[in-house]
Amino acid sequence: MSHQIITTKPKARINDYVSVDCVIFGFDFTQLNVLLVDRVLKDELTAREKFNDLTLTGNHIYEDEDLEAAAARILFDLTGLKDIYLEQFHTFGSPQRITRENDKAWLAANGRDPDQRIITVGYYSLLATDKVTLEWKGRNVRWFPVSEVKELAFDHMEILNEALTALRKKLLQEPIGFELLPPKFTLSQLQRLYEVVLGISLDKRNFRKKVSRMKYLVALDEKQKGVAHKPARLYVFDREIYENTRKELFDFAI
Amino acid sequence: MSHQIITTKPKARINDYVSVDCVIFGFDFTQLNVLLVDRVLKDELTAREKFNDLTLTGNHIYEDEDLEAAAARILFDLTGLKDIYLEQFHTFGSPQRITRENDKAWLAANGRDPDQRIITVGYYSLLATDKVTLEWKGRNVRWFPVSEVKELAFDHMEILNEALTALRKKLLQEPIGFELLPPKFTLSQLQRLYEVVLGISLDKRNFRKKVSRMKYLVALDEKQKGVAHKPARLYVFDREIYENTRKELFDFAI
Repeated sequence: MSHQIITTKPKARINDYVSVDCVIFGFDFTQLNVLLVDRVLKDELTAREKFNDLTLTGNHIYEDEDLEAAAARILFDLTGLKDIYLEQFHTFGSPQRITRENDKAWLAANGRDPDQRIITVGYYSLLATDKVTLEWKGRNVRWFPVSEVKELAFDHMEILNEALTALRKKLLQEPIGFELLPPKFTLSQLQRLYEVVLGISLDKRNFRKKVSRMKYLVALDEKQKGVAHKPARLYVFDREIYENTRKELFDFAI
Repeated sequence: MSHQIITTKPKARINDYVSVDCVIFGFDFTQLNVLLVDRVLKDELTAREKFNDLTLTGNHIYEDEDLEAAAARILFDLTGLKDIYLEQFHTFGSPQRITRENDKAWLAANGRDPDQRIITVGYYSLLATDKVTLEWKGRNVRWFPVSEVKELAFDHMEILNEALTALRKKLLQEPIGFELLPPKFTLSQLQRLYEVVLGISLDKRNFRKKVSRMKYLVALDEKQKGVAHKPARLYVFDREIYENTRKELFDFAI
């Protein structure tokens, strides 16, 4: 949904009926987080808070923008980061998208027609949590552990859940997990990533056995620095080896 | 026979800025086909044909419809079929979607603003080619072998290519191929399906070896009827066995 952005030149939206919503996932070596924005509605007369809840980050599409460019702009406005992994996962357009009173009141307070259907194109992105300085145009932006998010404004809980499903699926099929890790990582960090995103426990020995078969995970002659425990070996993901090995594969996983 | 739905009340579109496009794939045991519609523009004065080309099948979204319901309606209007496999694969919204003269002329002739951005939500569907009676609102609808389609109106060639990529990916990961086959099929038909959709050749012996490991492909005590060659054994896909076996898998195919 829309969060107003103040720019020096006013840009024209392509229309009021389409938006882009970003589900920004972050990994902090312990848990999977999602970036959420505070939504506060105050009573115009009393200035008393009517409600205070959370939304995903979204915006309209401007005239010169492709959908993905709009998503990248939202990400940049929020984090100052460019060239972040972005994946369009689903477009939401149910007639029942906006049904709750808070959501209708919020739209009305922002000069919008609560009964107008808005189609929103969902993107998810992946980054390392510590990369982001969190502040956004006067509103509070915070990381929340995905497992603790139980309710969001509009249909954003559905959007978050769909994004998570799409992310899990993709994680099992393509090497996107490395987007959530630093360039050099330990096998424990990699294992933790899979456990956290998929919500499962993995047996360490089996995991190492699987990993040892992945030629594109290259062990460096280098170890962790500045850790309290015994430093572990560092690995890198070699995309070239990955691409070359994949060509020989034919999954046929029906 | 026309499949036009006659409604007593005219329906309202949610707006003019969003549409749904359907890439309808069909398999006829020989090749992969796509359903295309003739687009003919005639000069108003001379009635001479200005151009005659092909498009995918798309439409607007009505007020009571979810996006998928709009796609299902398009499919029903076109084929008379309900409960067909439908998969949302990508939403297209580039500012450059409509740039060619023919496309602009077509929109203008249909009372639309050629410079207005239209976002379109792409769905693909799968069916057996022989299920469909092809006639649609006075326009010609025909199956074309996907491999022979080189040019389409608007950005529909890009949409078709993206749909094909999504279909191929999904075919390797989920048992959607059976949507393109009759309930009972031979292993040669199954092999041909994979070859045709993926655009590859498969070694028959290796294929049979793989298939023999798939517990959810159940051999029947029944053979083909009415074929010129030696009748082959028939198989069914058992979704229950598939679901139960999948639960035990952990792909981890990074």
